[in-house]
Amino acid sequence: VSTLRTPRVVAARKLLRRREREAAGRFLVEGPHLVREATRIHDLFGTPSALARHPDLARRADRVSPVGEEVLAVLAGTVAPQGLVGVCDFVDVPLDVALDNRPSLVAVLVGIRDPGNAGTVLRTADAAGAGTVIFAGEAVDPYNGKCVRASAGSLFHVDMVRSATPEVDELRAAGMRVLAADGHGDADLFELDLAAPTAWLFGSEAHGLPDGVAEVADARVRIPIHGRAESLNLAAAAAVCLYASATAMRRGDPQR
Amino acid sequence: VSTLRTPRVVAARKLLRRREREAAGRFLVEGPHLVREATRIHDLFGTPSALARHPDLARRADRVSPVGEEVLAVLAGTVAPQGLVGVCDFVDVPLDVALDNRPSLVAVLVGIRDPGNAGTVLRTADAAGAGTVIFAGEAVDPYNGKCVRASAGSLFHVDMVRSATPEVDELRAAGMRVLAADGHGDADLFELDLAAPTAWLFGSEAHGLPDGVAEVADARVRIPIHGRAESLNLAAAAAVCLYASATAMRRGDPQR
Repeated sequence: VSTLRTPRVVAARKLLRRREREAAGRFLVEGPHLVREATRIHDLFGTPSALARHPDLARRADRVSPVGEEVLAVLAGTVAPQGLVGVCDFVDVPLDVALDNRPSLVAVLVGIRDPGNAGTVLRTADAAGAGTVIFAGEAVDPYNGKCVRASAGSLFHVDMVRSATPEVDELRAAGMRVLAADGHGDADLFELDLAAPTAWLFGSEAHGLPDGVAEVADARVRIPIHGRAESLNLAAAAAVCLYASATAMRRGDPQR
Repeated sequence: VSTLRTPRVVAARKLLRRREREAAGRFLVEGPHLVREATRIHDLFGTPSALARHPDLARRADRVSPVGEEVLAVLAGTVAPQGLVGVCDFVDVPLDVALDNRPSLVAVLVGIRDPGNAGTVLRTADAAGAGTVIFAGEAVDPYNGKCVRASAGSLFHVDMVRSATPEVDELRAAGMRVLAADGHGDADLFELDLAAPTAWLFGSEAHGLPDGVAEVADARVRIPIHGRAESLNLAAAAAVCLYASATAMRRGDPQR
């Protein structure tokens, strides 16, 4: 059984830090669901009982290391680990590769720092059929453990792009309308025709989109508030916008 | 300046516990935004600087107690308190009072235990124009500090009802269609006519609606998944359902 001093465990534990993840090009996934989603698992750490419960996952991994609960908890970085932690390769792709797949719906997370929020929007984007999700600007690391968990596997389902900028020009050049979600926007979401390919820009709940970003979008779009709430939280707002687009596109093209 | 031993602080601190809240019929709100939303503040605790920044709030409170950062942090129950904590009365109303206001959109949270999720759904329901939100079954206490914070004030905007059951018969008797949000439901949300008054039942993300609850709804409704995500998280699913209803009702009645 491996301990916290076993070299393989030491190497994996380093991946809890962003800098070390960047250097290795690898990150950690926790729990059987996420381990199953990963294309390739270099190292699989598991309690003996979890490994026995998931022989298919143990067979797929390059190397398997049984560990105790203590080691697992350290690698999992969560209070209720599910017995397995895997080491896998970064999955992000360059923007041009993502755009070559001709997505009709794209979500751009601009400067979102909360990993739980970012992961939730990634999951919602996947559900709504967004083929590409861009993490732009000073955003959370998509390989942060909380973000990976909140994505519930969607990190492995979409073309995920990391970029210093929101890439508005490139998205537009690829034929997409670029819409900024903005609580103070002048266009009402439900009065727009959303059937065309669309990239949505979402900013942080606390600070909105950074200066200059909403201005370059084709429209600043607000979700109408019918009650007395001042705004929606980010996960709710993204879900409403992305599903409004997905539904309009499906209605516009019954083949979808 | 009051300390942790000052009787008023001792009494307020007890309200961090659900049992004591129930006994007193009072709860705590944290931060100037929530303090401002409360109809009546019995006691207002604040750091001297926060009280100086918000003289209007200090004037409205029955009693004002300057406290140090330490006392404030204890009462606020959060890592980044905003200088003010108020004691106010429970705001829930009986179901018949809420239904007398003839809401056309109702959200029922059935057995949702996570306070952040519950508060977020409450906020989203308010934004979508739901006049009534019901906390049903073994649900989180709506007066839990995390729930109050996540509601962002919406606790004070809607008719909030606490009930042992989802009250399906009463909602139907009040002329509402009762729809169960269910990832495995047989009705597609976007193929339904949602213009009629509707009560939505939402269960916990982990366990869904309890046995027997979805069965008594008029329909079990799924949000279509266009990508490879298995499901949406609760806040996202509730936002999509509630806004689908709100939008259909507005289209059905241009006066709204």
